Amino acid sequence: MRGKAVVGQSGGPTAVINNTLVGIIHEAKEHPEIEAIYGALHGIKGVLEEDFIDLTREPPSVLEGLRKTPGAALGTIRYKVKEEDYERLLKVFKAHNIRYFFYIGGNDSMDTANKLSILAEKANYEMRVIGVPKTIDNDLAHTDHCPGYGSAARFVAMAVRDSGWDTMAMRFNSPVKIIEVMGRNAGWLTGASVLGKEREDDPPHLIYVPERPLSQEKLLQDVERAYKLYGYVVIALSEGVCTEEGEPFGGKFAPKEVDAFGHVLKGGASDAAASIIKNKLGLKVRIDKPNYLYRSFMACASKVDLEEAYRVGRAAVKAAVSGETAKMVTLIREANNNGYRATTGLVELEKVANVERHMPDEYINQEGNFVTEAFIEYARPLIGEPLPLYTRLIGVRVPKKLTV
Amino acid sequence: MRGKAVVGQSGGPTAVINNTLVGIIHEAKEHPEIEAIYGALHGIKGVLEEDFIDLTREPPSVLEGLRKTPGAALGTIRYKVKEEDYERLLKVFKAHNIRYFFYIGGNDSMDTANKLSILAEKANYEMRVIGVPKTIDNDLAHTDHCPGYGSAARFVAMAVRDSGWDTMAMRFNSPVKIIEVMGRNAGWLTGASVLGKEREDDPPHLIYVPERPLSQEKLLQDVERAYKLYGYVVIALSEGVCTEEGEPFGGKFAPKEVDAFGHVLKGGASDAAASIIKNKLGLKVRIDKPNYLYRSFMACASKVDLEEAYRVGRAAVKAAVSGETAKMVTLIREANNNGYRATTGLVELEKVANVERHMPDEYINQEGNFVTEAFIEYARPLIGEPLPLYTRLIGVRVPKKLTV
Repeated sequence: MRGKAVVGQSGGPTAVINNTLVGIIHEAKEHPEIEAIYGALHGIKGVLEEDFIDLTREPPSVLEGLRKTPGAALGTIRYKVKEEDYERLLKVFKAHNIRYFFYIGGNDSMDTANKLSILAEKANYEMRVIGVPKTIDNDLAHTDHCPGYGSAARFVAMAVRDSGWDTMAMRFNSPVKIIEVMGRNAGWLTGASVLGKEREDDPPHLIYVPERPLSQEKLLQDVERAYKLYGYVVIALSEGVCTEEGEPFGGKFAPKEVDAFGHVLKGGASDAAASIIKNKLGLKVRIDKPNYLYRSFMACASKVDLEEAYRVGRAAVKAAVSGETAKMVTLIREANNNGYRATTGLVELEKVANVERHMPDEYINQEGNFVTEAFIEYARPLIGEPLPLYTRLIGVRVPKKLTV
Repeated sequence: MRGKAVVGQSGGPTAVINNTLVGIIHEAKEHPEIEAIYGALHGIKGVLEEDFIDLTREPPSVLEGLRKTPGAALGTIRYKVKEEDYERLLKVFKAHNIRYFFYIGGNDSMDTANKLSILAEKANYEMRVIGVPKTIDNDLAHTDHCPGYGSAARFVAMAVRDSGWDTMAMRFNSPVKIIEVMGRNAGWLTGASVLGKEREDDPPHLIYVPERPLSQEKLLQDVERAYKLYGYVVIALSEGVCTEEGEPFGGKFAPKEVDAFGHVLKGGASDAAASIIKNKLGLKVRIDKPNYLYRSFMACASKVDLEEAYRVGRAAVKAAVSGETAKMVTLIREANNNGYRATTGLVELEKVANVERHMPDEYINQEGNFVTEAFIEYARPLIGEPLPLYTRLIGVRVPKKLTV
């Protein structure tokens, strides 16, 4: 199938999404049936507006540099394709003889890709559409994990550990720290905070994910118990945690917003929790909201994630060239004793479009306030090299000399 | 002067404060007149309660490990010594024959150290008191800069750059990003956000420091102009920015708290700014508040800062042993053409106690919305090795084929 290819980046950027782009460009250049590879600026918006750049003209030094650059080099977008857009999209594809379409994104973007593939088929226009997974939320179905997650998870583990050690040192002034973690409906990223914990008494002490409800009573009980045990409490709190009634925990403290895909943006969970702890337990609380650093902080990118992000890009092109369409590339974990390894696979786009994968029960403890060993085993290899170990003083006590 | 030494860590931890501790221990071990070096747990609290550990018993592997560990290994405290504490403190010093006292901290801690030195002198108890600077705020007087600042500045530069590149990619959905930076009264840390900027159009576009007032009108004007120029706006906003009337910019949005030293804790500047921009310009705004990561994030520690933090520890002990007292160690920048270098010096504690050093006029631009080249020259060497460069696509445009 001779023709041009278009690649677009969609949704929230990640530290590694540019690696996927480079993987696609590198692989596309090896297949002569792909006459040129165009980049759509700001995802589907670029297609609608015919805003294409010729990626075959980018020198190797730029491509190498991109692999260490966060954000999304093509620009990205959150945009729900409307009924009236379809005709225009088809017109653009035909005008440029675009026969391959690669869309890097999350479940909303997979929905867009799926619809494009249906559109082309209905119009009898042969075009191969492959979705390429990307999301720090790790909530795409039918893939072991998503490129972008490992790097964000590494940042979460480091951030919660370092901010937690800060609280450990300052416990007599402000004994409670809440780190709010991104993830509207899934706790994969918040759970990763456990990966910076070495000892029982290390931070974090409590992990709350959206998969489990949280009541004021439970929060107070958990914090009080942890405070008694450790003298300070570090909480990794998902922004999306809800009450038992399914209301955002932030409740009345947080304004609600609705994004372009009709998602309710929940917020304010950490402010709500802090206020409860302060008022009911009288403990000082400090909050961190690194927010967009989770998906952009390049200095903590996971080497495993960087490599896999590149590899799924290559796999997408290979699949399209070999005749596949309406598929998303997946990562499949290989069971072996020589450590972690993943290969790539394919799944139908319609099976992942708009589907959210939540943490399974076996990854969350019974009390609903921490993750399990099974989750740690799952997540640990994804963040790349082990975190450097931290050191405590041995602390040989000097006998007191004064009687009072 | 034979006797024991006590070292304490005070105020907010930093990524490098443990390096200072190790510098003190290493140097103290080389001087036989220091019979033992005790660590006071949680600063002056540990002295008051005779909570000492024997640091000479810590193995070399622990000391090496501490140099890569954030937080404060001895534990720290914010505590204003009261009149009634002095008698007790003197009693403890005498009971253990403590003749050297090293206090690692900021301007409040230098006040505590100064008072202790006066106390000892009045009581005719010979004890050498040396303050060792530590603060990410960089607001200690009579020193070129403070250990802790370079590492926090490096994190700020990276955080604002990475989150800024995220906004660059997402500009059509959320064109404004505010990163709130720690610093109640001084803008040194917020200013460091410039160090991740390579090109005129790179983030950050606006930098607001507490040294200059900010009005709603000015904010709106600045944001509107930057938005027209770049299509998106990234703002590094100090938590301590005030209005022209001297009120915290957060104003009615933020609750006020008073800490143990009587400082009013200002907050909410970024929420206030975001709400103004949303309501008046109709632009979506996203906020990052990495808060305690500024002072703890070890993965971004500056090599220059790590080394200097260690060196000021050694210098403190050398000074005390050579007979100095009631002094704080300073860093002095050497003027030379072979790049940056700093030596250590000494200044009277009374000259730094409770004094805040603000950014001089020459480091802030005339419009009060950015820093100057002079500031960049000042701050750049302190963050250590240059940040890795990021890469943009060249972006050769594909001619459009459709007429509309």
